[in-house]
Amino acid sequence: MGLIFLDHLAGTPLHPKVKEAMIHHMETVFGNPSSDHQIGQPAAQALEKARGQVAVLINAQPQEIIFNSGGTEGNNHAIKGVAIGMREKGRHIIASNIEHKSVLNSLRTLRLLDYKVTSLDVDHYGLVDPAAVEKAITSDTILISIQLANNEIGTLEPIVDIAKIAQKHKVIMHTDAVAATGIIPVDVKELGVNLLSLAANQFYGPPGTGALYVRKGTPVWPLLDGGVQEGKRRAGTENLISIVGMGAAAEMARLEMPERLPRLKAMKERLAKGLLERIPEIRVNGHPTRCLPHLLSVSVEYVEGESLMLMMDDDDVVVATRSACASGSLRASHVLIGTGLDFATAQGTLVFTLGKDNTDADIDRVLEIMPGVVQNLRNMSPLYKKAH
Amino acid sequence: MGLIFLDHLAGTPLHPKVKEAMIHHMETVFGNPSSDHQIGQPAAQALEKARGQVAVLINAQPQEIIFNSGGTEGNNHAIKGVAIGMREKGRHIIASNIEHKSVLNSLRTLRLLDYKVTSLDVDHYGLVDPAAVEKAITSDTILISIQLANNEIGTLEPIVDIAKIAQKHKVIMHTDAVAATGIIPVDVKELGVNLLSLAANQFYGPPGTGALYVRKGTPVWPLLDGGVQEGKRRAGTENLISIVGMGAAAEMARLEMPERLPRLKAMKERLAKGLLERIPEIRVNGHPTRCLPHLLSVSVEYVEGESLMLMMDDDDVVVATRSACASGSLRASHVLIGTGLDFATAQGTLVFTLGKDNTDADIDRVLEIMPGVVQNLRNMSPLYKKAH
Repeated sequence: MGLIFLDHLAGTPLHPKVKEAMIHHMETVFGNPSSDHQIGQPAAQALEKARGQVAVLINAQPQEIIFNSGGTEGNNHAIKGVAIGMREKGRHIIASNIEHKSVLNSLRTLRLLDYKVTSLDVDHYGLVDPAAVEKAITSDTILISIQLANNEIGTLEPIVDIAKIAQKHKVIMHTDAVAATGIIPVDVKELGVNLLSLAANQFYGPPGTGALYVRKGTPVWPLLDGGVQEGKRRAGTENLISIVGMGAAAEMARLEMPERLPRLKAMKERLAKGLLERIPEIRVNGHPTRCLPHLLSVSVEYVEGESLMLMMDDDDVVVATRSACASGSLRASHVLIGTGLDFATAQGTLVFTLGKDNTDADIDRVLEIMPGVVQNLRNMSPLYKKAH
Repeated sequence: MGLIFLDHLAGTPLHPKVKEAMIHHMETVFGNPSSDHQIGQPAAQALEKARGQVAVLINAQPQEIIFNSGGTEGNNHAIKGVAIGMREKGRHIIASNIEHKSVLNSLRTLRLLDYKVTSLDVDHYGLVDPAAVEKAITSDTILISIQLANNEIGTLEPIVDIAKIAQKHKVIMHTDAVAATGIIPVDVKELGVNLLSLAANQFYGPPGTGALYVRKGTPVWPLLDGGVQEGKRRAGTENLISIVGMGAAAEMARLEMPERLPRLKAMKERLAKGLLERIPEIRVNGHPTRCLPHLLSVSVEYVEGESLMLMMDDDDVVVATRSACASGSLRASHVLIGTGLDFATAQGTLVFTLGKDNTDADIDRVLEIMPGVVQNLRNMSPLYKKAH
């Protein structure tokens, strides 16, 4: 049996059409889209084609798309850009305490520069309460940043409701939609947000490539100052090879989503049901229905997630203990702790993220090997022995 | 006769070895370097291989290289990162007034956040006076940012001298080496700088891909906050496809530089001499000897640079009127004005940047067509008619 890859949140393999588009571009175009001469023209055309492809995916206008180096840059740009752009109006920002680190650490930097942040608690599903958002708004509030989908537990936040509150109070609304865009339908107009971050490597595009949606009229200062690229909102020569790949990935995500979605959902249900049946003292994290269709986070008591991951890796089943963004950090996930999970259980977490090429046979293989791996690890655990 | 490309500053075609490395990577590796499982390992190896290749090119340690999205990000990171990292020590920064827009506009943003900037004049060659730098230092100075080579006129600044002054006064020294790195030898230890920006698309690597050299111990706050990538100094999933290309480009630049350099120099001299002989009222901008070997900026009186560029483009000779970064902006080049050139002459500027694949025949073709194009344009100029 070959390798089974179930960590698509860390990065997806390139879609064959993406690879094809990137290689074709590399072999035919090398110009700079900003050049006025004949070598610049095909580059400018390729850039605008990709912009259109990404815009359609999220129901935006092409000029509302700013290409960048990924979700982290988009989140930094949205938050710091509004902070500087709106500094005369106020210096208060609202976010949840289970946002991605690129949001939380951007806010940490702003605190150094005398901005104030309200960090909202979530319930045990990871849900933000819109009423709590409204209560936190002051006359000094300039921005609300709440993710569309959490990247560790998959919970979908009530963005439509929160955006309505933001609009009512004339506060700018940003959503980190990195874990959701390209997987589920994302429509910036339906969501009602001013700013939305997305990343190509969540939907079979290249890594380190993303975009920030900026609704027309939203005052966002550049994060990268310099030349006049991207409508003067993001300076720097574009990584056009990657952008072309992102455009192709956006188009394929849009076209294939109707086929991908029900398959992902069915596989996730099969996996969750199978694990709950086969492994005692296991729990599913996140909201049971308001959740991403391809992400399953489970916590297994008396087991250390890292060991579990490595032993399954030995059996060629590749999963994550937590987001790749947080690997290398040894602390327990701030997201799981934020949902009220105790530290020990949080340490025993596996995150499965399914992809379009996974099959029921892959799920069955997980169900075949994981109970045994868990039992082996538990047999070595003094805490487990004591409890049983 | 085929197309003659003489605008390599806007971006170089990919070196065949770069293309090969990128395509091979796209076909064999898709993991995230931060993942601890078997899919992450080859990605982490590819990342560290590229880091080593870039480090060797500039005589740095691998851990002193931070990959990013290009020269603009490197300059923003160096300047804003030191500004935040050193905010307790002081809030004064020194730069020249002919720096790249990514430096100048980063400083503009810092001014909004209550930092102070001294902008130094240059002489008519575009040279910064080290004594003027020293005079500008105050007890509040935290950073000096002076480019290694100017990207519009090619003048090489006395960085070694300025870095010594910076060190003497315990001020951090950054140099924007984007236009120089990969073209001429760049050695961070010889230069004595703390920070140095470079970009892959200046030496046959992919666009939108670069690195910031950060000497060990230099206090630079992240520009992109978030995960723990790049030693916690630059968050965000790496654009590994592009980084692998940059590594290969750095290696080829190092290996081929001894062969490329004398050829570029000889072609540039042939071009300069030929143009001065054939076109009356033409001047060469920048320093005659302390200059980049592949960049020639000339200003032609009574001619509008944009028209000249477009007419030569019709004859399949592709040059720039100014840096691609500044295209789209209609103002005269701040660099040329900074060297004391009058507005009208500055408008008649062409920038040739030669590449490794150019030949003497390409230069001869320019010498063949450009005098006629200039004369045609002048014949339409009322000012020229009046003066002659």
